Amino acid sequence: MIDHRPSCIVLGGGGFLGTNLCRRLASSGYRVRAFGRSCQFREALDHVEWYHGDFSDTVAMAAAIETHEIVFHLIHATTPQSANLDMVGDLQQNVASSLALFDICRNSGVKRIVYVSSGGTIYGPSTQIPTSETAPTDPITAYGVGKLAIEKYLALYAHLFGLDYRILRVANPFGPFQIPLKNQGVIAALISRALRNEPIEIWGDGSAVRDYIYVDDVVTALEKAMFDQSNFRIFNIGSGHGRSLLQVIAAVQPLLNTEIKIEWKHGRPVDVPVSVLSIERARTILGWTPSTCFEEGLHLTLDWWRSIEKSK
Amino acid sequence: MIDHRPSCIVLGGGGFLGTNLCRRLASSGYRVRAFGRSCQFREALDHVEWYHGDFSDTVAMAAAIETHEIVFHLIHATTPQSANLDMVGDLQQNVASSLALFDICRNSGVKRIVYVSSGGTIYGPSTQIPTSETAPTDPITAYGVGKLAIEKYLALYAHLFGLDYRILRVANPFGPFQIPLKNQGVIAALISRALRNEPIEIWGDGSAVRDYIYVDDVVTALEKAMFDQSNFRIFNIGSGHGRSLLQVIAAVQPLLNTEIKIEWKHGRPVDVPVSVLSIERARTILGWTPSTCFEEGLHLTLDWWRSIEKSK
Repeated sequence: MIDHRPSCIVLGGGGFLGTNLCRRLASSGYRVRAFGRSCQFREALDHVEWYHGDFSDTVAMAAAIETHEIVFHLIHATTPQSANLDMVGDLQQNVASSLALFDICRNSGVKRIVYVSSGGTIYGPSTQIPTSETAPTDPITAYGVGKLAIEKYLALYAHLFGLDYRILRVANPFGPFQIPLKNQGVIAALISRALRNEPIEIWGDGSAVRDYIYVDDVVTALEKAMFDQSNFRIFNIGSGHGRSLLQVIAAVQPLLNTEIKIEWKHGRPVDVPVSVLSIERARTILGWTPSTCFEEGLHLTLDWWRSIEKSK
Repeated sequence: MIDHRPSCIVLGGGGFLGTNLCRRLASSGYRVRAFGRSCQFREALDHVEWYHGDFSDTVAMAAAIETHEIVFHLIHATTPQSANLDMVGDLQQNVASSLALFDICRNSGVKRIVYVSSGGTIYGPSTQIPTSETAPTDPITAYGVGKLAIEKYLALYAHLFGLDYRILRVANPFGPFQIPLKNQGVIAALISRALRNEPIEIWGDGSAVRDYIYVDDVVTALEKAMFDQSNFRIFNIGSGHGRSLLQVIAAVQPLLNTEIKIEWKHGRPVDVPVSVLSIERARTILGWTPSTCFEEGLHLTLDWWRSIEKSK
């Protein structure tokens, strides 16, 4: 049990979730170090110590982790698309590097690892909707298999070495600081393209249902996961509601002054048709509940994009 | 659907299970190639083509697989003990090499991969006894995590590339050609040490319950897995009955003329207390059932050991 305000390191602190998490932790008074290869919004992390390093560089990672007590592991070097193109590379970059991280953690004073897993890819297509944490895990992308292997190794390190951990299987987060990169972040892509009057490529027919969750709520769940003392280790984090891509587009369109131009592309085999998470465990055990509704989240995201466009 | 007698390659054909499988396939009239780094009983494989190669050598593996239609994947370079000592190495040697194998298979004329997984380590400690294929998979050894990752990648290759496969989660096999190596094969160890009047080291207090299955029955299941046309992919292969180590010792002792001398050692964290498989699915779907009872299997194993000792 941690009875003081622990020092935190956020691996992947320069990315979308990481930037939001670091800002929250810093404003809550935690000592925070962000570790990563690149920092997308350096000025947004002015109260956070930035530590430049590569996840595959064990020496840099060990030096960065030092005396930190909580390790937020948010790094994943691939995407659901890219991982399938080089599965051995994916395994090496993500799973092997995570094992090296766990070794560093068990040999230092780390009290807990909080790992961000993938609620959207880890279950696969044949599960009950909404999907609970006990559902079968049959990923249809190497990205999901890698995340699952990392989860299993975390449980193994806890069993063998007593390394404490929590896993959050996060649905589709959206919000400020999300950049539409490598085919991820459809809401960010919709808004940013529309603001620039550019068309957006969308795979499938718009029927794919996802569980969109505003990033602030994910960050709150990550904060709560630091202190959870239950016997549970894995928590779904989503809104608990499904929205088709067509519904998302219909919700974003009226907020904009321009028309969203879509170029429809054929569906991809890495996409499951429906992904909606059951979040009962997080509600009951973590005392967490999403507090920002989808429409409010869209407004906040759009405000952020407009502030970014203005400052250019 | 394969409507002729397919050509088979057995990866790990020089090991315990592999030797037994190759002999059966050859005597049933199949064209068989055995691939591996070492062959423990070369003379036992006189009707089998031996192809020397390392599992991590992609070029050798591709050359060996050539035009074979069925690939039996029996290679695992580590043991439940050794895998925990170098998890990254384990991942590299077993999981990454299996991915390279699957790429070779999907780019050649391979019709099906039959993979031997681990019924004893893949489920972990907290499951129902006897354990069915749908039980949670929470291994407490890196060996089990690696096997699980390979299973998941097989399902992924089937989804993405149509590569057909079956997985047999085999319990604790025993029988001829099993050499007590690297802390595996307790029955082989009991017999061979006793015949030489040597003491045997045993971890734990003898209460650990395992599901022992005679190797001929496992080989029959592997043969059946070649032709299964069901929608199932994973089958437990065991006796369906549990025996404590003390019970095994008590069953072996009266068959020997000498006393088994045991040096008891402290238990190991990689051992689950009880592992017994439910084999209903294999019974129903494969039409398979174990035909050699435990005592009969012990007799046959002892006969083989005596023939080996005599021929020295």
